[in-house]
Amino acid sequence: MSKAKAVPPGAVIGILGGGQLGRMLALAAARLGLRTHVYAPEEDSPAFAVAHAHTRAAWDDTAALSRFAENVDVVTYEFENVPLQAVALLARMRPVRPGERALAVAQDRWREKTFAAGLGITTPPFANIETEGDLAAAARAVPLPAVLKTRRFGYDGKGQVMLRPGDDLAMAWNTLGRVPCLLEGFVDFACEASVLVARGMDGVVVAYDVPRNEHERHVLRRSHVPSGLAPRTELRAVEIGRTLAGSLDHVGVLAVELFVVRQADGTETLVFNEMAPRVHNSGHWTEAACDMSQFEAHVRAICGWPLWPPERHHDCVMTNILGHEAKEWMRWAAEPGVVLHLYGKGTIREGRKMGHVTRLLPSHGAKTRQA
Amino acid sequence: MSKAKAVPPGAVIGILGGGQLGRMLALAAARLGLRTHVYAPEEDSPAFAVAHAHTRAAWDDTAALSRFAENVDVVTYEFENVPLQAVALLARMRPVRPGERALAVAQDRWREKTFAAGLGITTPPFANIETEGDLAAAARAVPLPAVLKTRRFGYDGKGQVMLRPGDDLAMAWNTLGRVPCLLEGFVDFACEASVLVARGMDGVVVAYDVPRNEHERHVLRRSHVPSGLAPRTELRAVEIGRTLAGSLDHVGVLAVELFVVRQADGTETLVFNEMAPRVHNSGHWTEAACDMSQFEAHVRAICGWPLWPPERHHDCVMTNILGHEAKEWMRWAAEPGVVLHLYGKGTIREGRKMGHVTRLLPSHGAKTRQA
Repeated sequence: MSKAKAVPPGAVIGILGGGQLGRMLALAAARLGLRTHVYAPEEDSPAFAVAHAHTRAAWDDTAALSRFAENVDVVTYEFENVPLQAVALLARMRPVRPGERALAVAQDRWREKTFAAGLGITTPPFANIETEGDLAAAARAVPLPAVLKTRRFGYDGKGQVMLRPGDDLAMAWNTLGRVPCLLEGFVDFACEASVLVARGMDGVVVAYDVPRNEHERHVLRRSHVPSGLAPRTELRAVEIGRTLAGSLDHVGVLAVELFVVRQADGTETLVFNEMAPRVHNSGHWTEAACDMSQFEAHVRAICGWPLWPPERHHDCVMTNILGHEAKEWMRWAAEPGVVLHLYGKGTIREGRKMGHVTRLLPSHGAKTRQA
Repeated sequence: MSKAKAVPPGAVIGILGGGQLGRMLALAAARLGLRTHVYAPEEDSPAFAVAHAHTRAAWDDTAALSRFAENVDVVTYEFENVPLQAVALLARMRPVRPGERALAVAQDRWREKTFAAGLGITTPPFANIETEGDLAAAARAVPLPAVLKTRRFGYDGKGQVMLRPGDDLAMAWNTLGRVPCLLEGFVDFACEASVLVARGMDGVVVAYDVPRNEHERHVLRRSHVPSGLAPRTELRAVEIGRTLAGSLDHVGVLAVELFVVRQADGTETLVFNEMAPRVHNSGHWTEAACDMSQFEAHVRAICGWPLWPPERHHDCVMTNILGHEAKEWMRWAAEPGVVLHLYGKGTIREGRKMGHVTRLLPSHGAKTRQA
């Protein structure tokens, strides 16, 4: 990495998307002396309040996008469903990191799975369904139970239908609006895990410890670190993250969600679920338990700053605060060793991610807690 | 503490002063879901960029101060030289924490030393000089070498004259403009230390580990934690912090700078130097090495949130980045375990505080650093 390429302190990072991930990126950037300009269509975007500047405009507002690009030095995004046209426009004016390739792959479940499988990473059996004519072949290729998922714009369990033996694939496809879908064999997993790696412009990849993740109603509820998985399973998870990041020529944080399947003899195998070319909910604990958070790692990477291997100083459990649980903030605030993070969202909605807490577990390395 | 009194997430903290301390308070508040409104006269105030709102106006602009008060839920300050008239106006409209008393005492070196001495805390010999007539008595009470300091508005060695045996006190007083001064016996200290405590609205006081501080040209250069001082010296330092905070009915962080004098037999005694009713440069390491930073502790206290004893997970050394050293940011950014904080100041001036780094020392408690 040449120093000349680095985006220096004082420069402006353009962030596409104004949710909590954008907000946490902006806070991490501020600590490094970098400014942020957040672009989002939603009026109540929580990232606006902590950014140096913001643009509230639609994704297809080319004039607003151009002005935004003129005012920033590098562009990144907090979610992978940014319209590719917007990114393409910005990329003609400013570097966009991670680039269009990572975005294009991550936006499409079929491309994503095909890409991972092509790298020798185990995936569930899967088949592409674009037309009525694809249904029969898909049904043959993927035994039920299986999950039918829209190829695009799915998240937190949205755009999915579970198919059990005897269910009708054509009917399920109609339910999802006959849009391009992926039929994916159901994985009978013992638990879920993820790997978070950050890759710099110089190709250096650093990895965080692997969290074990618990979901409730398709939404992440808790991440546990350490994972309790076999050391070789964790090593394989990191290898998967490195392989994907390298093959995509990714710059920034890449998160990969994995199913852990336990064989009869107790050995664990990892099955690729999906990836996110961005900071990820299952890495929120890094801000409380590591000397470099995933948010800082992402900012460093996209700015061409050096990355070094983050050190974790505590075991921990990260728990999402969802919907009306946010009203109980005082309960968490009162608990020693619980690092509270609230996203400043004005409106509570059922299941909405309002914040998270990282509970730091008693550590032999702790120096002192003064009374 | 009653829950009813707490300033809840979503509320607005008004911060007087827009420097790096205000900026770091704003960043800590944001993580707790609180908004901030920064009031400062200087156009290039680094806190403006991370606050939800800001007012750029003079300290005597009563209309601007009133509007500011209307838009915030609680007021705090990042520096103790906020004009008392401004604070008095605000205090009629909103709670100001820490209150006017802490501010009035901390703004005046004579009141401050008198207050500390009255609590049985060792101070250097000192005398008040308000008129020509006070000079002779002061010279008798305080043997040279001594330091003549303006009672008000001194910081980082400004407004001070060193007097050695044979020097003329009257001439020194003329040099300082014949304003009210304090003549203070020079303390032949072995080193300097400070204590940082946070006191809640419920009277609960929590303390950080005591840093040992190195100054260069009257400006803090480095803080070392642990201090290397005798355990009983550290305990006494914390006791001094608790006593002062309690006696002032202080709410928020209080920092006390202390001289450590080493006797011939090796025992250490602590001599009060000065105090700051706010977050303090010698506590910047807490953001990198503790589970609750001094900034969060201050925000919690002034908002009536619970405080719990912070735990330090690493030994560390905090170093200020001064003036043109900021150009060497890449050197620090590249070093593993060095937590970099830059203040986003656009203009470099000789000796200006541009940022700081906290070097985390290898810890037995560290879990893993993934390669």
